[in-house]
Amino acid sequence: VRLPSLVAAVDRALRATGMPPRGQTVVVGLSGGADSVALLDALASLRRRRGFRVVAAHLDHGLRAGSADDAASCAELCRALDVALRVGRADVRARAARERGGLEQAARRERYAFLRRVREEEGAVAIAVAHTRDDQAETLLLRLLRGAGATGLAGMRPRRGDVVRPLLAVSRREVLAHLRERGLAWKEDPSNADLAHRRNRVRHELVPYLEERFNPGIRASLARTAAVLAEEASHVRGEAEELLAAIAREEDGAFLLRRSALAEAPTAVARAAIRQALARAGGLARVGAVHVEGILRLARAKAPSGRRLPLPGGREVLFTRDDVRLERRTRRGTEAVSSRGER
Amino acid sequence: VRLPSLVAAVDRALRATGMPPRGQTVVVGLSGGADSVALLDALASLRRRRGFRVVAAHLDHGLRAGSADDAASCAELCRALDVALRVGRADVRARAARERGGLEQAARRERYAFLRRVREEEGAVAIAVAHTRDDQAETLLLRLLRGAGATGLAGMRPRRGDVVRPLLAVSRREVLAHLRERGLAWKEDPSNADLAHRRNRVRHELVPYLEERFNPGIRASLARTAAVLAEEASHVRGEAEELLAAIAREEDGAFLLRRSALAEAPTAVARAAIRQALARAGGLARVGAVHVEGILRLARAKAPSGRRLPLPGGREVLFTRDDVRLERRTRRGTEAVSSRGER
Repeated sequence: VRLPSLVAAVDRALRATGMPPRGQTVVVGLSGGADSVALLDALASLRRRRGFRVVAAHLDHGLRAGSADDAASCAELCRALDVALRVGRADVRARAARERGGLEQAARRERYAFLRRVREEEGAVAIAVAHTRDDQAETLLLRLLRGAGATGLAGMRPRRGDVVRPLLAVSRREVLAHLRERGLAWKEDPSNADLAHRRNRVRHELVPYLEERFNPGIRASLARTAAVLAEEASHVRGEAEELLAAIAREEDGAFLLRRSALAEAPTAVARAAIRQALARAGGLARVGAVHVEGILRLARAKAPSGRRLPLPGGREVLFTRDDVRLERRTRRGTEAVSSRGER
Repeated sequence: VRLPSLVAAVDRALRATGMPPRGQTVVVGLSGGADSVALLDALASLRRRRGFRVVAAHLDHGLRAGSADDAASCAELCRALDVALRVGRADVRARAARERGGLEQAARRERYAFLRRVREEEGAVAIAVAHTRDDQAETLLLRLLRGAGATGLAGMRPRRGDVVRPLLAVSRREVLAHLRERGLAWKEDPSNADLAHRRNRVRHELVPYLEERFNPGIRASLARTAAVLAEEASHVRGEAEELLAAIAREEDGAFLLRRSALAEAPTAVARAAIRQALARAGGLARVGAVHVEGILRLARAKAPSGRRLPLPGGREVLFTRDDVRLERRTRRGTEAVSSRGER
């Protein structure tokens, strides 16, 4: 039997990532939008052949009046595909208010927390999410427009830890063709529509503009570029981790890097190591490329020991003769940073 | 004395690159356009303080009727600044016809060949070219639109070999302000106007569009991103060079890579090594990311030895049990590649 092309693409992606292994369970994030419906359908049609189990997980973000309808249509789809469905509810607004990172970020955090909870409860090994090649292209543009900052341009990877993205090489057009072919219904962006203004502007305005005025194949070419950058960044990140393992330590709760070793590392590796150190010692929120550069410049300079560099969010960096020291700045003086490090 | 801000920026850039050392000569590429006029002026005003000599070099591309006028205004400027001027003439159309790479590429090659000739004749150590932060931003967008391909997105670096770019952190706006301040005249894009349609569309259409619709600081943020990517790419490239030194050899004129070592290298490094190998064995013209990926995939696959992959431009790659072999494909059979390797 010849597989439908989208199913074949998902099959290739699963084999390339080695996820899920035979006999194991994969949790599929299901919003009810076109991408996740197609992904669930493809995984459901592969489960027997590849010997894995599929559980769908839908989170009601509680952001719109009709959001309970989304759960109902997910339930209907799962009955039709004979897939178990787990439904959760979150208060995204409350989290956004608490963390002051915006609705989109709060929604993403709630979603992944929910998916990880379901994964654990189901004894699953992997979480499959439905990012497509178009999402990859849009993400690259978004990061480029925002100024890359501390996170770089690198795209999403087909697998990162327990998260796999089997649609990353599939275009939105192919997703829609597959749904039509299979007679499957979906909702337009049910959970995301009002969350991601900027992304929607990139999707509906910038990408079509670039396609028409500059390069009709821009989606594919951006996605390829994102993948290449992801590999380069991942390589540099790996080396930065090795560097940190060799030169970082905690002392009185502060996070210290051996200054000479940091200064002598290749620029790209040193920069990535500084980012990772900042992520571990207080997180990367509001840290930009300019701060990373500043730390590296002072670490390399013959700056007098005792020099301090303030960072956003009440931290500062102290440059001693031997160390670069990340500390929390307080009104009462200088105190240790706690390790939060979440991204 | 406080230096004008553009001169101070050039001074900082020269100190950061260590070029030119005291007592040495720098050749400045002078088109007569705003950027190169400002660069020449800045270098001329720094030469005494920093103890170097400046020679200007203007190439008449012979593409427009009035191109000799450009040389005349360059001569006038150089007299005013008391800088020696060397003028050359090139037949860019003939080169473009011969090499079939387009006028812009032919012009760039003629220009650098001319600058290197002047550098040698003047016993100079460095060539200064006038790329600005805006050029850096535009280059990133151009590469992104074209699909990055084999060359990646990485931006221009402040120094590469004997070429330095002292204006890379300076915006075009600052250049124009400096020229007004100093009462210096320039010509609008005298040598480039008709060469770089695509670049001009990016400059006059895409950048203003992004600035207005998405991010007013897009120029600075693109330039910063380009610089970060340049560092990452340069790091990966360095490792790829080390890898090649360990696993590449020439044999019967073919270029061979030890297959197992290539297959086991980190993806980013392996990819860069393949690019470099292709560049050395026949050049990178018409080679895209898809070819590099294909070679890496087959090197890693358990492909039967004897498998062949054709490349654009009459080359092919042969996968033997132990080696990945780059060869020239001919009508009469398979023959060695010559090493051209120019980019």
